Amino acid sequence: MRLSPAHLAILFAIGAIGGLIGDQGHVKSGTTQYLSDAVPFIWESALWFPLLVGLGTVAVGVTRLRLGNLTPNPSWNDGIVGIAAVIGLYALTALLRGEPLSPATVLCFAIAIVICARIGGGRPALICGVLAAITGTAAEVVLVEIDAASYAEEIDTLGGVAPWLPALYLAFGFVAARLAELLAEPTRDR
Amino acid sequence: MRLSPAHLAILFAIGAIGGLIGDQGHVKSGTTQYLSDAVPFIWESALWFPLLVGLGTVAVGVTRLRLGNLTPNPSWNDGIVGIAAVIGLYALTALLRGEPLSPATVLCFAIAIVICARIGGGRPALICGVLAAITGTAAEVVLVEIDAASYAEEIDTLGGVAPWLPALYLAFGFVAARLAELLAEPTRDR
Amino acid sequence: MRLSPAHLAILFAIGAIGGLIGDQGHVKSGTTQYLSDAVPFIWESALWFPLLVGLGTVAVGVTRLRLGNLTPNPSWNDGIVGIAAVIGLYALTALLRGEPLSPATVLCFAIAIVICARIGGGRPALICGVLAAITGTAAEVVLVEIDAASYAEEIDTLGGVAPWLPALYLAFGFVAARLAELLAEPTRDR
Repeated sequence: MRLSPAHLAILFAIGAIGGLIGDQGHVKSGTTQYLSDAVPFIWESALWFPLLVGLGTVAVGVTRLRLGNLTPNPSWNDGIVGIAAVIGLYALTALLRGEPLSPATVLCFAIAIVICARIGGGRPALICGVLAAITGTAAEVVLVEIDAASYAEEIDTLGGVAPWLPALYLAFGFVAARLAELLAEPTRDR
Repeated sequence: MRLSPAHLAILFAIGAIGGLIGDQGHVKSGTTQYLSDAVPFIWESALWFPLLVGLGTVAVGVTRLRLGNLTPNPSWNDGIVGIAAVIGLYALTALLRGEPLSPATVLCFAIAIVICARIGGGRPALICGVLAAITGTAAEVVLVEIDAASYAEEIDTLGGVAPWLPALYLAFGFVAARLAELLAEPTRDR
Repeated sequence: MRLSPAHLAILFAIGAIGGLIGDQGHVKSGTTQYLSDAVPFIWESALWFPLLVGLGTVAVGVTRLRLGNLTPNPSWNDGIVGIAAVIGLYALTALLRGEPLSPATVLCFAIAIVICARIGGGRPALICGVLAAITGTAAEVVLVEIDAASYAEEIDTLGGVAPWLPALYLAFGFVAARLAELLAEPTRDR
């Protein structure tokens, strides 16, 4: 069971496009800002941002297949719900800038847990989600450190990024893992 | 398979009551306002508004049955979840007036897609949802054009209505289609 | 079928910890405030608050078992989703303080109904949810009456408490009932 080049391209495209849709909300709401105009921009994002998210999605997908134990009958309905749910959570985080940070963070983690539990995927998806939460958050901390981007002052309490960011990456990792299963295995329902 | 007069009345009532509950939130939050006091009002709505939503719900239901291929075992649990989810999305849109419009719109479409995918109903429900999104949004554009009502200035970017409005009608159409299936077919579970 | 002392302790702990997580959001957002410093505090809560929520969770669990008709195959996935969903709704209510109260209240009831319907549990869970909504809301009205705590002025329209409060307790009662089933009956899936 493997992901063909076409499937890797699909994973990359879903991640890159989802990243663009989510990131424009963060930029529009002032949740994040890019600190340099020296790179080309797509929509509201520096070119490297959708590339990183696309590559991250591919990396999660490849990791998921390495972990084995693919779900026998994945459903495209789950895939669509997963993509919409993660983009929805991403958009929600853009609306939380002016809200009290601790309940906003609890809300994001609660939604992420509901998404993960309902999308399913068991222990391998959980591993992908936790890895994504750690590496995604760490990568953004580095991007803030090198002054490539910054989070709004009132929400940058987790090493320069927002404390709800791991929740977003957790749900992202779960869903990307599930999409890899869908692409690797012919679906039977829907 | 058809909808009896009593079933059509139920669809009308669900639409009209749901419309009243959602519309009072829009009026209270200043999301929309009625521009004429010349007609009678119910709660916060001009009399014609719940009538239109009720008739729209009936129209979606009749359309759904025309499309055939009814789901064999619809569940009233899905029906209750669908009604609550659409009214919840309607209420949410009333809270988005002061928020950045593009992530607010992404959030509404993401939630609508999750509702549609989880309520199910396949291609016929999708057709009903898309038809509702087009005709519902177009109808409100006309209502704004003839100065019957208006959306708040900061959100009226889609021909005078809010850009998240098609998402609300999409979910509405999906759920109304599903309710028509439930009423036309005796349910077996729950 | 009964709950062992260890199971009662688990229900108590879930309720107490969930209460603490939710309550800190209410305090941070100014949704509620404690009016006396004479008691010890844990995190942002007066000591008696997590104790009451924990005991309430145990009371719902015991009530649920008395009602009989346990679901044959409860799922821990439902339990995790239920806990996360109620804590998420609790956190959401903390973000609604500055929002128009009537759509905010509709949103909370809509979300509570979706949670209840999706967590399932049938008539016994519904009874637990309604009992929790009535007694939980009544208990908080008393706490406000005796000046132990208060809700922010703009949202205290239901006898001194917020009008969305019964929705939160409704979902809480449903989920606590479901957790009692899970603990009393060995789960088979997941």
